[in-house]
Parts: sequence; C-alpha cells; structure tokens
Amino acid sequence: MPERVKKFKEEREKLNKLILGRDNLDIKRFFGIDGSVYRDGALTARTKEMLGLTASLVLRCDDCIAYHLIQLKQLEVADKEFDEIMAVALVVGGSITIPHIRRAYQLWEELKG
Amino acid sequence: MPERVKKFKEEREKLNKLILGRDNLDIKRFFGIDGSVYRDGALTARTKEMLGLTASLVLRCDDCIAYHLIQLKQLEVADKEFDEIMAVALVVGGSITIPHIRRAYQLWEELKG
Amino acid sequence: MPERVKKFKEEREKLNKLILGRDNLDIKRFFGIDGSVYRDGALTARTKEMLGLTASLVLRCDDCIAYHLIQLKQLEVADKEFDEIMAVALVVGGSITIPHIRRAYQLWEELKG
Amino acid sequence: MPERVKKFKEEREKLNKLILGRDNLDIKRFFGIDGSVYRDGALTARTKEMLGLTASLVLRCDDCIAYHLIQLKQLEVADKEFDEIMAVALVVGGSITIPHIRRAYQLWEELKG
Amino acid sequence: MPERVKKFKEEREKLNKLILGRDNLDIKRFFGIDGSVYRDGALTARTKEMLGLTASLVLRCDDCIAYHLIQLKQLEVADKEFDEIMAVALVVGGSITIPHIRRAYQLWEELKG
Amino acid sequence: MPERVKKFKEEREKLNKLILGRDNLDIKRFFGIDGSVYRDGALTARTKEMLGLTASLVLRCDDCIAYHLIQLKQLEVADKEFDEIMAVALVVGGSITIPHIRRAYQLWEELKG
Repeated sequence: MPERVKKFKEEREKLNKLILGRDNLDIKRFFGIDGSVYRDGALTARTKEMLGLTASLVLRCDDCIAYHLIQLKQLEVADKEFDEIMAVALVVGGSITIPHIRRAYQLWEELKG
Repeated sequence: MPERVKKFKEEREKLNKLILGRDNLDIKRFFGIDGSVYRDGALTARTKEMLGLTASLVLRCDDCIAYHLIQLKQLEVADKEFDEIMAVALVVGGSITIPHIRRAYQLWEELKG
Repeated sequence: MPERVKKFKEEREKLNKLILGRDNLDIKRFFGIDGSVYRDGALTARTKEMLGLTASLVLRCDDCIAYHLIQLKQLEVADKEFDEIMAVALVVGGSITIPHIRRAYQLWEELKG
Repeated sequence: MPERVKKFKEEREKLNKLILGRDNLDIKRFFGIDGSVYRDGALTARTKEMLGLTASLVLRCDDCIAYHLIQLKQLEVADKEFDEIMAVALVVGGSITIPHIRRAYQLWEELKG
Repeated sequence: MPERVKKFKEEREKLNKLILGRDNLDIKRFFGIDGSVYRDGALTARTKEMLGLTASLVLRCDDCIAYHLIQLKQLEVADKEFDEIMAVALVVGGSITIPHIRRAYQLWEELKG
Repeated sequence: MPERVKKFKEEREKLNKLILGRDNLDIKRFFGIDGSVYRDGALTARTKEMLGLTASLVLRCDDCIAYHLIQLKQLEVADKEFDEIMAVALVVGGSITIPHIRRAYQLWEELKG
C-alpha cells in the first residue's frame, strides 16, 4: 500500500473515532448504515462499490472517490472495468468531473504499487 | 407499457429530434457518446445502467431516473436488486434524494403492470 | 389544512408505505434516523426544523421544503422568523434558489388559511 | 408572446410582489442586485444574459432558464448562438442537463411564435 | 486562537480586500448583505450562524464551514449542540458530507485549544 | 507565466495523457468535444470561455476555473469584464461561491505577472 494511501486511511480512522466518540446516536446509526449498505446482498459488494464510486464521481467528492478506489482495487476490478466506470461518470456529470477523474486515474495507478 | 411511460418516451423522442435537427456537431457527438457509454463492454449494459441510475438519483434528475428504470426493467433487474440500488443512493445522497426515490418506487411498480 | 397540503401528505404517506413495505433494512434504518434527527435534544425541534428547511432550500428540493414548512407552521414560527430563514438561504444559495423561495412563500401563505 | 410564457411571467410577478411586500431588507437588496448585475457595463446585457443562462443550465433550474430565454429572445440572439450556449452547458454539466436542454429548446421554439 | 485559524482569517481578509478594492458595485453590495443577513433580528445571530453552517455543510464548502465554526465557537455553542447540527446535515446531505464533517470536527476540537 | 500556473498545466497534461493512453473510446470522444465546444463559431471563443468560466464558478470547480482564467487572460479580457463575470456568478451561485471567487481573483492577479 502506497504511503499516501496509508496516511489517508489513518487520518480517516482517527477522525471517525473522534466523531463516534461523541456518542450522538443518529450519527452512529448513520455510520452503521454507511457500512452495511455496501455488503454482499442481491447485488455483490463489488457492484455496490462501483455504484458508490459513480455517485462519488458525479458528486465530485475526492475523499469518497479515494475510499471506493481502494475497495475496488482489493476486489480486483480490472483496468478496462475501471475505465468504463470513469466513462459513465464523465458523460453523466460532464467536464466538471474531469479534475476528479484525473486524480482518480492517478490514485488508481499508485494502487497498482 | 403504461400510458404515462409511453407519453414520456414520445415527448423525449420528439424533443431529441428537434435538438439533433439543429445540426450542432458538438451536441450530436455528445448524444452519440451518451448512447455508446451504456453498451456492453468490460462491464455489462446491465451494470452500466445501474451506475447511470445511481448517478441520476444522487444528482436528483427525475427524467434521467425514469429513463434508466425503463432500461433496467427491460434488463429484468429484480426487486431486491432495485432496493439495494435505492439504498446506496439514499445513503450517499441523503434524505434530499427521498422525494426522487419515492417517485422511482412508484414508477417501478407501474412498470410491472 | 389546505386541500393541496392534505394531498401532498397523503401521497407522501402512501409512497413511504410502499418503500418501507419492501423490507430493505438499510432503507428502514435511514428513515428511522430521518425522523429522530429532528426531535428535541440539545437543540429544540423548532431549531432543527429551521436547519432542515435551510438545507432543503439551498439544495433546492421543493418536497423537502414543503415538509419543513408544514412542521414549522405547527411549531408556530412567526412571519419575521420565516423571512430571515429565507434571507439566509437566498444569500448562501444565490438567485438559483429564488424559484423555490417563491414557492415557499406561496405555501407559507396557504398554510395560514 | 405565447400563453404559457404570459402565465409564467404573471405568476413570477405575483410572487415577487408577495416576497418584496414582506419588507425584509436583505431580501429586497438581493433582488436589487439580481436586476442590476445583468445591465450593460463592461460586458453587454446580451453577454451577461448568456452567462446567466449557462449558469442556470448547469445548475438545472428550469424557471431560471425560462427567464433568461425570454430575455435572450428579446435581445435577438440567433439560433446558432443559442445552439452553442446549449453545447457549452451540455459539455460542462453532462447528460444530467439534457432534460433541461430539451425543455429549453421547446420554449425557444415557442418564443418564435 | 490556533495558528491555522489565524492564517485562514488573514488570507480571507487579504483577498476580500483585493475583491472589494475593485469597486464593482454589485459585488460590494453582495458582500454587504452577506454580513447583515447573520445579525440579530427576529432570529438570533446564534441561530442564523447555525443555519449558515448547515447550508455550508450540505453544499460542502470547507471554507464556509470553517468561517461559521469560528463564529459559533465565539457564540459559545456547546458540543452537544454542535453534534446535532452535524447530525442534521449528515442526514439531509448524505455520506457525501462525511469528509467535510470530519474536517469540521477536527477544527472544532482545535478551536477549543 | 507564473511558476504555479506552469506546474498546474504540466500536471494537467501529464494526467490527460495517462487518461487518453487508456484508449477508452467514449472518454477520448468526450475530450474531443471538450476542446471543440470552445472554438470560434456563431459565438467567439472569447464569449464561450466566459460561459465556461461562469459555469465553473457556480459549480465550484477550482481547476476548471483556473483553466478558463488562463484562456481568458490570453484572450485579453479586461479587469472590468472579469469583475462582471465574477458578479454574475456570485449572484447566481450565492455566497457559497465566494471562496472560489477569492481564489479566482488571486490567480487573475498572478496572471498579470
């Protein structure tokens, strides 16, 4: 795992811990759903992570994109599959998504290690 | 096909014809990509339509949602699969997507008709 | 309660029932949080409904705006308070929110009925 | 002027009057700027209305689009110019803008009436 | 005041000065309203800052969030109140707001310093 | 050309090359349109770049804003014209655009270099 990714995950964990430590029940429940919604069901976790990535791309959230890329790499998504997710997001979301797509390709390469 | 859906498709076709009749090359090319991007490739058309639906839900575009629902019904997506797409979009996009999710469920039921 | 509002609430209830009848656990849990998050706590329900209204205005979701207006009317929010919520949303969200603000004022008047 | 446009303008005026009658100073000032920002200056009103239209298209606000179309028709924008504004908005904003672009073309035709 | 916050405010002031020095009347007026809209009125400045924060969270603008956090800390908003604003924004805006909520919690802790 | 701008363009070129090297036909075609849509036609490239800038501002995409600023500086847009584009975007998009407008003014000054 590249250094940049390790740091991203550590920062994420540290702040999640801070948030969940506050004991706000609604926030805790939301974080619970945010985990369970991507688990295998009628659709595979793999497909759901692809849905999450596409949503993150068109909503232009770099941290969310990074998170789903890491998941999809572990689930062994192929380059050609990755390209086609990028293409759908680009067409739906327009050129405004391009800076995020650039950073997604950059991270995807780094994740190949 | 329910009457409402037939009308939706006719209106859509009529206006697409008006737009493409204007002979703006960039617009014509865009419409070309907007078709080809959902075709079978490394990912199936079925998966790509699911990606398109999720993007349309979080961007809250009712006409886009309706279009992808019609496609997914023809591709025989099951109710449980449909529910899980809705769940991902709801968690990513928040309660602000609920009115669109309500209308998506309503149309999904009508499409069974 | 004006006829239009009654119909809005009925439609809303009918479709919520359809969605929750599908027994998708993530969706059910989300709907649970969507209710509890507006209840009295460190902040009053009144303040929380104002927060929800402001969020709905800048995200430009008419159904969400309508819902919060109905709640705020029942909580006896005054006209001058209402105006100031509109003003904050208008400044933050820009002129693009004006059509939604117009419809919000129209409904607010009807709710006085 | 087509009937639909006349009605749109009347509704708009009626609700603007309701809003401005409330005497909220911040809202009144905002409406003032919303008028003055499109007047001839270093850029012509014509160019500014084009900017306003493009912004309304990518933010997907039908009422805002309709308003700027009416203005641009009065300023005698040509069909080819109109097409190119649509093309820029489509490329920047993506396929999610297409339903709004369809309705914009429909209204543009009606305004020729 | 933490170093990071001091720097944020200085940068902000410097660029505001640059913008206002250009003497564009519409921009100057907008900045005027952007100040007055948060002042005590029918609603307290405290409530209005909470509205501004919620709007900034669901629109995912880190600089705007930081600004309102600084204001709310000076207005002595309690941790439990802060948590509930975060919860409302999270539910309305969805998981896409989480990276911004993480950074908001981080800054909130620093402001205690 | 300031160092920061040179680096921005290099990074942009490097990642565009990575993306286009993947040979996804839809993405390549999209990038083609994204170039051609800003060329002289019924509207001048100058006007089209202004439209692209306004769209980028209200959609709050810093990289897109930077790109159009560089283009507009080369096309010798005057300061007063620049101010009026900023004013339209600010009014349409609201205070949420201000951080992006601040950074736009900062870059605009640097480009005078």
